[in-house]
Amino acid sequence: MAHLDASLYDQPGLRGERRRQVARILEAALAAVDPAQAVRRALTREGSILTLAGQQYNLDEFEHIYVVGAGKAGAPMAMALEELLGERITAGSVTVKYGHTAPTRRIKLMEAGHPMPDAAGVRGAAAIEELLSRATARDLVLVLISGGGSALLPAPLPGITLADLQALTSQLLSVGATITEVNSIRKHLDTLKGGRLAARANGARVAALILSDIVGNPLEMIASGPTAADATTYADALTLLERYQLRHLAPHAIRGALERGARGELAETLKPGAHELARVQNVIIASNAIAASAAEDAARLMGFNTLLLTTYLEGEAREAARVLVGLAKEVLASGRPVARPACILCGGETTVTLRGNGRGGRNQELALAAAIALRGIDNVMLAALATDGSDGPTDAAGALAEGDTLERAQALGQDAHASLLHNDSYTFFSALGDLLLTGPTNTNVNDLIGIWIW
Amino acid sequence: MAHLDASLYDQPGLRGERRRQVARILEAALAAVDPAQAVRRALTREGSILTLAGQQYNLDEFEHIYVVGAGKAGAPMAMALEELLGERITAGSVTVKYGHTAPTRRIKLMEAGHPMPDAAGVRGAAAIEELLSRATARDLVLVLISGGGSALLPAPLPGITLADLQALTSQLLSVGATITEVNSIRKHLDTLKGGRLAARANGARVAALILSDIVGNPLEMIASGPTAADATTYADALTLLERYQLRHLAPHAIRGALERGARGELAETLKPGAHELARVQNVIIASNAIAASAAEDAARLMGFNTLLLTTYLEGEAREAARVLVGLAKEVLASGRPVARPACILCGGETTVTLRGNGRGGRNQELALAAAIALRGIDNVMLAALATDGSDGPTDAAGALAEGDTLERAQALGQDAHASLLHNDSYTFFSALGDLLLTGPTNTNVNDLIGIWIW
Repeated sequence: MAHLDASLYDQPGLRGERRRQVARILEAALAAVDPAQAVRRALTREGSILTLAGQQYNLDEFEHIYVVGAGKAGAPMAMALEELLGERITAGSVTVKYGHTAPTRRIKLMEAGHPMPDAAGVRGAAAIEELLSRATARDLVLVLISGGGSALLPAPLPGITLADLQALTSQLLSVGATITEVNSIRKHLDTLKGGRLAARANGARVAALILSDIVGNPLEMIASGPTAADATTYADALTLLERYQLRHLAPHAIRGALERGARGELAETLKPGAHELARVQNVIIASNAIAASAAEDAARLMGFNTLLLTTYLEGEAREAARVLVGLAKEVLASGRPVARPACILCGGETTVTLRGNGRGGRNQELALAAAIALRGIDNVMLAALATDGSDGPTDAAGALAEGDTLERAQALGQDAHASLLHNDSYTFFSALGDLLLTGPTNTNVNDLIGIWIW
Repeated sequence: MAHLDASLYDQPGLRGERRRQVARILEAALAAVDPAQAVRRALTREGSILTLAGQQYNLDEFEHIYVVGAGKAGAPMAMALEELLGERITAGSVTVKYGHTAPTRRIKLMEAGHPMPDAAGVRGAAAIEELLSRATARDLVLVLISGGGSALLPAPLPGITLADLQALTSQLLSVGATITEVNSIRKHLDTLKGGRLAARANGARVAALILSDIVGNPLEMIASGPTAADATTYADALTLLERYQLRHLAPHAIRGALERGARGELAETLKPGAHELARVQNVIIASNAIAASAAEDAARLMGFNTLLLTTYLEGEAREAARVLVGLAKEVLASGRPVARPACILCGGETTVTLRGNGRGGRNQELALAAAIALRGIDNVMLAALATDGSDGPTDAAGALAEGDTLERAQALGQDAHASLLHNDSYTFFSALGDLLLTGPTNTNVNDLIGIWIW
């Protein structure tokens, strides 16, 4: 289970005490979305009866149980599933990110590239397709889905190469397409995404355990929805390419496939109501809302008046910070909307428009902008945490901002305004010792931001 | 009293009905901060006893009552005061913006330039100084302060010309200084700002009725605080000039005055605890919080579950919109933090970084970004309103966004993304008929943003 490095709060007096409270609350959130814990909580077994979100599966009725899936949290999810089902698992193949493997017995963990799909990912997808080809209507297929699953499971349509997919992904990201948009195109170029994985299970019962890394938990978007209906069409994918003026720059084979699909020459992704999805159960077992609620519960137990504001936080990180500090100011001024001691929680995922070439991530940048807005304001802390433990391309999960952050930084020769200008929040908070350090948490349910007002 | 143009809601069906509710709630907010109403509510008279925020003034004890002040809301405030005190007012002089005058009898309304101070403003300040010079310890000076008062009341220190002040203001605004920063410099160059007006009343009782146009109602900042203590110094003003690299570009006389002040050769603005301010009562009679609370009361009466989130909303308008839409999404998904039908209210003042050369204002731009974020989401409306009736350099107070705004706009040939890119929100909402039109409201307590979720 993930813990925050104690250097954050191992200091005397009120500051250390308050930081320790903040750390405990964030750790409670991380514990609630630990992948193994989430599997254990969601899927319970009594004898031969398996229960998942109220739905029962009688293990005696299934000839084989196959486990497939992909995502960065695949290893702990697979281990928890093996604890529960052991020898009842016939075979399994789950693709994980390089280095994110674990000693499983029945479920083979295949390592592959992320965020850029690679040949190992294609081999992983082929292994899953082979397992699915063995499934029948008398079997149960358990699907383990987590963040990163889309890139880890590339199964390009015939005629499309991995290089084509890589080129397209690069093009889309470089013009500022959102990951949602990237996925909505990719799923039309793939034999497993957009519900197609579930559809290939030959009528087996399918139960997907999903760790959501997308704001709002849209089933069709998480890992490009291998077990979920997809309302978008080939025509929509083409429209997106055009919006980003990539229709004529995208790899030839990709453009060709999308155009053939739009003309009806290729089967569509699985649409809502498709009979192939009738025997599929999709369950979100960990999400930002679960993390935020756990943080709220922990804060309430510690005596805070809590407000869980939203799990749909979006927008430019530095601007979201200003809005959130505005809430703290109101609490200080009027005790609205919650009286002190107050803990206001938000989840979601902000974005950063890169202006400089410093080091940082969206949470550290949000905390830096918050520190600027909080300057001179006592009794407030803001902590912004990437639940996967790695905020942007850094080894920190986020950072903590207080009213005297700027003053303390100044004494260390750090200039908050300059750091923000150059997107250099990591350097700034590193000098202060105010980074949130967890190491990899093996989970990802986006970001959690807390504001404490004493 | 200000009303929204009925074209917004005069339409059949549910849309018209809901918009009418929204309009009533916004109108309730505007009514609560109407300047004349605010004076009548704050200042009451029973015979010879005048009561202001719990403090009593016995009119029989005063030889003369003088009324001075400045601000865009000066005319209705002066009229309301004349209703109450009539012939008891010895004389008065209040500076208002060109065209914002009214038929007063005792209190002379002097028209002057805003936002750029002009010679008429200097004449108005001189008239006020002349009245103050007549005041004694046996008199009462009532001060009417509202937004714009800083620019309307230029009283430059000897040796500084109006042209110097104008040049400085232009320089500061062009490098992105905030109005708070501009005022903190200007008050050190002026014989009436920074508490100096009150200090010139020769020991008379001073009661200031203040309509706050600054987020958080800082007394020392509203109209540059003519009756309030000022913690900033000449040295601080110089530091600000340096931060914006204007120390050597600012007019020579201004730099000279600030440097002399920093060396202690000029008297400082009035500092907290100054004895000259001991007989001064400052009362905020209208503010964003008063408007927001009135909106909340009206919404609650209509059956909404309300949440007054903050009156300290700041940040880039389009990004604040995304955060606020994130709140609406949570209400739809989980009924948190308030159940439907919900009304979430925020006050404050966002900013717009100009990218294009379209027409718009911060509230219209916020609504436009909200419309993009709300696309396809039913049962949500967001309205953003500049309480002075003029959002940016437009004749609209703001705009209203709904889930089908983009679709309706498309049918009219309007492209929301392009409009946002070019800061052309006025053109966009004008085509749709979704502008909030109030005409000048004669008040200004910043902006009010409401989100309704049915």
